[in-house]
Amino acid sequence: MIKTISYPEESQWTMLVQRPAVKQSDLFEVAENIFKDIQLDGDKAVSKYSQKFDGIHYNFSPLGLNILEEAENKLTDSLKESIKKAHQNIYKFHAAQAESINKIETTPGITCWRESRAIEKIGIYIPGGSAPLFSTVLMLGIPALIAGCKEIILCTPPDKNGEINPLILFAAHLVGITKVYAVGGIQAIAAMSLGTESILKVDKIFGPGNQYVTAAKQIAQLYGTAIDMPAGPSEVLIIADKTCEPEFVAADLLSQAEHGPDSQVILLSDSSNVIENVNSALGKQFEELSRKELTKKALQNSKAILFESIDECIDFSNQYAPEHLVLTIRNAEDKIGRIQNAGSVFLGNYSCESVGDYASGTNHTLPTNGFARSYSGVSLDSFVKKITFQSVSSEGLKNIGTAVEVMAEAEQLLAHKNAVTIRLNKMNKS
Amino acid sequence: MIKTISYPEESQWTMLVQRPAVKQSDLFEVAENIFKDIQLDGDKAVSKYSQKFDGIHYNFSPLGLNILEEAENKLTDSLKESIKKAHQNIYKFHAAQAESINKIETTPGITCWRESRAIEKIGIYIPGGSAPLFSTVLMLGIPALIAGCKEIILCTPPDKNGEINPLILFAAHLVGITKVYAVGGIQAIAAMSLGTESILKVDKIFGPGNQYVTAAKQIAQLYGTAIDMPAGPSEVLIIADKTCEPEFVAADLLSQAEHGPDSQVILLSDSSNVIENVNSALGKQFEELSRKELTKKALQNSKAILFESIDECIDFSNQYAPEHLVLTIRNAEDKIGRIQNAGSVFLGNYSCESVGDYASGTNHTLPTNGFARSYSGVSLDSFVKKITFQSVSSEGLKNIGTAVEVMAEAEQLLAHKNAVTIRLNKMNKS
Repeated sequence: MIKTISYPEESQWTMLVQRPAVKQSDLFEVAENIFKDIQLDGDKAVSKYSQKFDGIHYNFSPLGLNILEEAENKLTDSLKESIKKAHQNIYKFHAAQAESINKIETTPGITCWRESRAIEKIGIYIPGGSAPLFSTVLMLGIPALIAGCKEIILCTPPDKNGEINPLILFAAHLVGITKVYAVGGIQAIAAMSLGTESILKVDKIFGPGNQYVTAAKQIAQLYGTAIDMPAGPSEVLIIADKTCEPEFVAADLLSQAEHGPDSQVILLSDSSNVIENVNSALGKQFEELSRKELTKKALQNSKAILFESIDECIDFSNQYAPEHLVLTIRNAEDKIGRIQNAGSVFLGNYSCESVGDYASGTNHTLPTNGFARSYSGVSLDSFVKKITFQSVSSEGLKNIGTAVEVMAEAEQLLAHKNAVTIRLNKMNKS
Repeated sequence: MIKTISYPEESQWTMLVQRPAVKQSDLFEVAENIFKDIQLDGDKAVSKYSQKFDGIHYNFSPLGLNILEEAENKLTDSLKESIKKAHQNIYKFHAAQAESINKIETTPGITCWRESRAIEKIGIYIPGGSAPLFSTVLMLGIPALIAGCKEIILCTPPDKNGEINPLILFAAHLVGITKVYAVGGIQAIAAMSLGTESILKVDKIFGPGNQYVTAAKQIAQLYGTAIDMPAGPSEVLIIADKTCEPEFVAADLLSQAEHGPDSQVILLSDSSNVIENVNSALGKQFEELSRKELTKKALQNSKAILFESIDECIDFSNQYAPEHLVLTIRNAEDKIGRIQNAGSVFLGNYSCESVGDYASGTNHTLPTNGFARSYSGVSLDSFVKKITFQSVSSEGLKNIGTAVEVMAEAEQLLAHKNAVTIRLNKMNKS
């Protein structure tokens, strides 16, 4: 099912870690024009583009709270319980990320520390389409609420009847989001970035989306709105040795591949048997899938690579920097120290990626496309900024003042120097 | 010296928190063409642009280690001691930011945690010009070394003789940076973003710069390189009450204003006397300054605003979101809880901004231009990413598996569901 490469030379790795080329978006100009229009005309322009692109009427207001409340009547009990269970785990893990204040006396009389403050205004985008991504509502809404963000708004495109899937509404209501707008696409991102009569201008925008949304988020950054992270197709890298269960590995590869034709799945092993057995299980399971066509395309982008050792597999994985890394090897925890670049890591036979996607408690908004080399996934940190504080006593200034004067003078910033000198002089006089 | 506004209506605040308009950079196209050239021709193109823009010859290699070692011979003892003192404080404060691992059992059998890993390859840019910003070498180099970044390179433009200021070299050597390249401007940023024969492709670029460098860093982001934060002119907001020392306040305002004509300084007070006294001290101190012309321009952008109370001053400051916030008020520490948006905060009469700029231990690379609403200043966090880990036992999967199956099915991701089902089935059989 997926092609196998055996014992590649290290010089080939650079080529092997390349993702399938994603066509650079030509949508910047389109997106920028919509931003300009919405900056000028506000809701009127939002309404125009909602009609044009989605064929729906924009309501000029958030949904009524009763609509959010009533959503739960449309869901089965098992679905509601499942979502609440996931909520609990995600809440527990993200609440534990809050940092305590740690005051450091760097020099006698000089105390420095950091305090976290919520980013006040947050915009969450949830794509529409056939599969309602209510799990992403939990992943973004829960840490925003824990952080204490004052204003949290959610935009999501409605269906042709102007309605939003009750799963999304139930998740939003459960999390505590009260302002949901039935608007999608570039116009939703632009409205949150710029503000309109009905939609608040936010400080930071979170959430996945298609190429239109991705382009709009990049434009939003140019307008001064922060975004969660750069986007790219989803991917998994699985390292498996003889202790793995080949059917489990095949199932995990397929669960990533079904995300879309541009998803990528990589299998690394130190055993050609493992690769053969996984490939054969893959073939069997594939036949039973519902999204065969796009899964097939994703598998064409994918590869199994045979290495000399598990350590070499991990070295390769570090260079690839996968969004999801599954280690289904003997004593997986012993290898954690070697892992340098990954978004989220799944250890052992029972830690399947879908558990992390929904309910283990970790966040599923993760860096793809090699961005795990420099970005973290979404966490409580993503919803706060850390402000530094310093308290310098007269004693502290006596201890450090001369050093500051000397350095400021060397940087030719004499007013910087003078701010210290004027204080030291006053102290000497009194 | 600076214009005063008394008791503005809240409706005027939005206008009052506006920064002076910075002309949008027209340099994107220039920068993008240089990126394309360097992507094609590597060092040859770096050399071409170094010649063209800076009139210097690019050496196709980093400086010899002996040049870094010998720099200290050109510095006075007091300068070396001062820099070492600053190094010590910055090191102490940033080392204390390291996080310990906190494993959370979200559900029996499911353990989740985060571990920090250094971003492996870091590029630091230090501008040239008359004032050598060696303090920024400390602010960026020290946390990079503490984080454990494997490769740290520094680019800085040399003078017309091809030489780099010994202060920069001394600071780099003290910090532990071994690879310094005599190259500046767009070509330096492009080389670090793309990699050339002599310069390593880095994962993240840090450092200040002029509008060319700022444009280049934005292009670098489009090429997938992370950057520290968006740039903007430096600024300070001081809140002063009757307990302040007007000459100190005036000195702090001037120390910010000397950064450049586009800097902004804001004074808020609940006392018109304080504003008058500060303004009069400002006039006197201004006459003794060396950088009069550009300081004067910055003061023209600036304002003093009289409010009813200190709490109202803080509310306004939160809306402004200053890079530097100085609280020279009675019991400043009692007001910390009200502060929502700021880069770095200075408490009391002796906590002058220049102490934080050089030596208190806090970082001076901070969000300007209102970005303090959504961004933190540089810290140890800026040099690491946090990877999530999860370990799910068979018991854990039994506890959460059904919830995952139900949710995956509701999102129409059946292969996600199957990855759980196949495991639960196997467990039930055995």
